[in-house]
Amino acid sequence: MTTTTSFMRSEIAEQPDALRATLDTLLPLIPEIAALGRQTRQVLFIARGSSDNAAVYGSYLIQAHSGRLATLASPSIATTYGAKVDLTGVLAVAISQSGRTEEIVDTMAWAADCGARTIGITNGADSPLTRTADIAMVTRAGGEHAVPATKTYTTQLAALAVLALGLGAGLDRTELETVPDAIDRVLARPGDEVDAIVERLVGVQGAVVSGRGMAFSTALEAALKLKEACYLHAMGLSYADLLHGPIAVVDRATPALLTAANSGPTLDGTVALAERVSAAGAPVYAVGGGSALAGACDLSVPMPDLPEWLAPIALIVPAQQITERLARSLGYDPDSPRGLGKVTQT
Amino acid sequence: MTTTTSFMRSEIAEQPDALRATLDTLLPLIPEIAALGRQTRQVLFIARGSSDNAAVYGSYLIQAHSGRLATLASPSIATTYGAKVDLTGVLAVAISQSGRTEEIVDTMAWAADCGARTIGITNGADSPLTRTADIAMVTRAGGEHAVPATKTYTTQLAALAVLALGLGAGLDRTELETVPDAIDRVLARPGDEVDAIVERLVGVQGAVVSGRGMAFSTALEAALKLKEACYLHAMGLSYADLLHGPIAVVDRATPALLTAANSGPTLDGTVALAERVSAAGAPVYAVGGGSALAGACDLSVPMPDLPEWLAPIALIVPAQQITERLARSLGYDPDSPRGLGKVTQT
Repeated sequence: MTTTTSFMRSEIAEQPDALRATLDTLLPLIPEIAALGRQTRQVLFIARGSSDNAAVYGSYLIQAHSGRLATLASPSIATTYGAKVDLTGVLAVAISQSGRTEEIVDTMAWAADCGARTIGITNGADSPLTRTADIAMVTRAGGEHAVPATKTYTTQLAALAVLALGLGAGLDRTELETVPDAIDRVLARPGDEVDAIVERLVGVQGAVVSGRGMAFSTALEAALKLKEACYLHAMGLSYADLLHGPIAVVDRATPALLTAANSGPTLDGTVALAERVSAAGAPVYAVGGGSALAGACDLSVPMPDLPEWLAPIALIVPAQQITERLARSLGYDPDSPRGLGKVTQT
Repeated sequence: MTTTTSFMRSEIAEQPDALRATLDTLLPLIPEIAALGRQTRQVLFIARGSSDNAAVYGSYLIQAHSGRLATLASPSIATTYGAKVDLTGVLAVAISQSGRTEEIVDTMAWAADCGARTIGITNGADSPLTRTADIAMVTRAGGEHAVPATKTYTTQLAALAVLALGLGAGLDRTELETVPDAIDRVLARPGDEVDAIVERLVGVQGAVVSGRGMAFSTALEAALKLKEACYLHAMGLSYADLLHGPIAVVDRATPALLTAANSGPTLDGTVALAERVSAAGAPVYAVGGGSALAGACDLSVPMPDLPEWLAPIALIVPAQQITERLARSLGYDPDSPRGLGKVTQT
């Protein structure tokens, strides 16, 4: 591995502190969120890019544990079609790192016009999103200089965990408060397993990235990172969608990267998927999933035990490390992918 | 091009008749759908694979034109997490080619238990989905032998157009009835443009496939076809998500395939995307989009004029042709991709 550093590497390392500051700021909002929750029946997420992957986590978390429907909006219904949709009873949750992406700000305003109540989740303390939402959940990630989002992504996940608690999820908030320490332990390791996976990915053209349930968000976000910083043809697919066609794409030259919590209802299916991909002749690498998943994979990154609902906040960290190291191994600057700026206007 | 034929090629050609039979069967259901619509406020689609891509079309169509929220369910909330979610006021629309995919049948039953009314869209006339839905919309695609869905997909889109009309979309049903003839005209052409694109895709490892609004469904479905039958690393991305990171992935060796209706609110953005991808040095190919999009692309397949809301039913046809011909050019059997069966159980 090259020893050059990058903003992305520093920002990966800042995540435990960013998460502590974010939880300190947001946990006190739970009563306010609960009050807004009582005025609404369901959640609709408004997001793009990494924030959209965070929304996928929020969607599974709230549906599995808060008893509410929680799905993703299509911003172009507002911005391109200008359609009116009945959103009474809807809690619209807009997520944007900068809080300034026009499409997201405009879609949240549209949702309010259509009858929704609104929450903005953003790292932009003084941004249009914070000024216009009924409740602003401002993450405390600090400045992020690398274009690929790292600490702004994991702090969004933490905000979504707080949102789920506010909406009545029967989960233990003290477990959430252990996540920063768990990520400290991930970062303290020498990272030999990460380096071994990076070495095998050098020269690879395409890869499938998959995870199930809560960890599907991790697969999507890992695939996005590998696409944007390493120009890898990384296809982020849910377990079920992978079996509905794209399983054909894996072969000796197209590895699969799978991710799962060390326990919980999605682990067995992920192990079975690893076995199936391996039987198709493709290399299989894992992040998390404990000894069961490691035993079915060629290489794996072990993860500390976290409850399944919180595992995605930590599971993305080795994927960020793989991305940052692979980009540098390939001679790319992970901080400044070609063609991308920090605030995306679409 | 090789002259060997395939089930997939025959089934592509059968689409106009399959659509005529499907519309004859389903249009009379509009009053019954309208009645169910009056008992509900919003739509929730339950689907996987190609059917999920059809659901994306339905979601844009119903939101843009019927004034209702229409989003996609995560079946694993039902099947893996076994969670209860409040679905009162929800019209759950399950889509499954066979009507027998357990995950979809089980998730529709779960939705009913959670308070939803149900519609099943399937080509399986005597299937669990038709027997258990409040309304069964049975497509008349006939038997489909190739594993990659073609006529079962386009007839699902036709069923969704009927659903949107039933839910009060202010659209002209006689326009829908012109679609089979429009596809006849697509199929009657010699297909030189399709062959030219196939020739350029031979040997390509990865491609980005994109479309906006209604045509996003076409991009997702084209990417799925290219993955499952040609083992191409095809990344189906919305316009906005492409700009939020994955735009970095396009280069001289990674072409973009873009698709749009010949007119409508998404055309300008798609032309701008073609220009941006082209400026990044990547080849750009188009299906549809009229002369505006053709002028911004290296190669394009012209399409007959159809209103934007119906264009996706026809736009997928050249993408099916590209897939079938590319698979054969690469020496693969398009009917039987490796690792896939016709009814997927997950």
